Amino acid sequence: MEKLANLEKALGYTFSDPSLLEQALTHRSHNARHNERFEFLGDAILNFVVASLLFHQFPKVDEGDLSRLRANLVKQASLAEIAQNLNLSNFLRLGEGELKSGGFRRPSILADALEAVFGAVFLDQGFDAARKVIGGLYAPKLENVDPKTLGKDPKTLLQEVLQGRKLELPQYTVVGTHGAAHNQMFDVECSVPKLDIKVTASGSSRRAAEQLAATQVIALIQQMAPAKGAAGRARARKNAQLTLPVAVSQENK
Amino acid sequence: MEKLANLEKALGYTFSDPSLLEQALTHRSHNARHNERFEFLGDAILNFVVASLLFHQFPKVDEGDLSRLRANLVKQASLAEIAQNLNLSNFLRLGEGELKSGGFRRPSILADALEAVFGAVFLDQGFDAARKVIGGLYAPKLENVDPKTLGKDPKTLLQEVLQGRKLELPQYTVVGTHGAAHNQMFDVECSVPKLDIKVTASGSSRRAAEQLAATQVIALIQQMAPAKGAAGRARARKNAQLTLPVAVSQENK
Repeated sequence: MEKLANLEKALGYTFSDPSLLEQALTHRSHNARHNERFEFLGDAILNFVVASLLFHQFPKVDEGDLSRLRANLVKQASLAEIAQNLNLSNFLRLGEGELKSGGFRRPSILADALEAVFGAVFLDQGFDAARKVIGGLYAPKLENVDPKTLGKDPKTLLQEVLQGRKLELPQYTVVGTHGAAHNQMFDVECSVPKLDIKVTASGSSRRAAEQLAATQVIALIQQMAPAKGAAGRARARKNAQLTLPVAVSQENK
Repeated sequence: MEKLANLEKALGYTFSDPSLLEQALTHRSHNARHNERFEFLGDAILNFVVASLLFHQFPKVDEGDLSRLRANLVKQASLAEIAQNLNLSNFLRLGEGELKSGGFRRPSILADALEAVFGAVFLDQGFDAARKVIGGLYAPKLENVDPKTLGKDPKTLLQEVLQGRKLELPQYTVVGTHGAAHNQMFDVECSVPKLDIKVTASGSSRRAAEQLAATQVIALIQQMAPAKGAAGRARARKNAQLTLPVAVSQENK
């Protein structure tokens, strides 16, 4: 196991009481003195610190959008990514079963341990120390937050893109299903007639296929950029054929 | 409108920048400079401060129970109760529509404004000031927290009480419905044969009636206290007849 000092270096924080860090890294499968209570505390301080960072960074963004941004930043996948950058899995204390089944790679275990580390920092030296550690780890993510898009699902984004261009809503149609009953795949077509776009995508649920199709349509529209007049439409059509499995419809109207 | 200084007195906190308190008390129906962003911040700091108070007050309680306790302490009804003790409605700034419809009494508006006040304290003088205000207001509630019961619904509690006495689970039976279709009432009987208890309660849903019946059964069992042997059962039967609309069943074995 790697030395804890290396993790402290990555965190930019040295513990007064290193046993707090040890407990934060201990999964319940390893020891009764495990990290779940720390995780409860760390989750709460993380939510608050990220709320306060977003509040100051985006003085004009309303509370609904702030909530969406925060949800995206503190979700398991975001935490697991930060944990991976810290090589947190090298420091985890897992029980044998979890070790054998690769628990040190599981996003949930990584995310929980990272929250527990935040809790441990708070217990060790208080709020300002925890805020500093969280702020440091989140700085790169916060720099790249686009409040208009982060955390929105592709269907919502596509709808907003089209509304911004005063175009009608996209149409989603299930054009096929295949696979066994317990493992069915759905083919969904998403069409935007005014832009000559038709994309078909597959997913394990209707919703998943719709989201994937919407993602592809957004990519197409972004390539088209101005998308005004015949030239824009022609370029769009060409790009579509080049880059994605798109069936180009005959022009509607 | 009452002077803000009176509210500051009740909060035990004086604002360096009173305009923050004003904004915290301003509903969106009143002014564009309203309290919803403050509420986002205040909700987060409240969740964290209560988490940290519970963490220290209950060193042996696990994270699942800590979450349940916190959820109960920060829920709308708990916040609205604190807001009422502060006479917060006397200080709210509402639009005309909300004023006429009695918005200053609405639990959601009161709870949101109180969270916004916590956010405003944090913006005014930082974390320690907010923690002190929240800790002061929550002290009486925290003194009375019983981690075994707070926030558990009556059916769960009854189940635990019976399991603690190695008794079988209670039986819930819908024994009648009445009222018009859009406003139906359900009569549910909850029985614990081994204790000779049968209680019938009514509610606007099956679940509501079950919860109410469970509440009454718990009260009966608490009166019975030791509830072992014939004397206990006889006392139980007597209490039941005295205090609640209970039909006593013939002894099941």
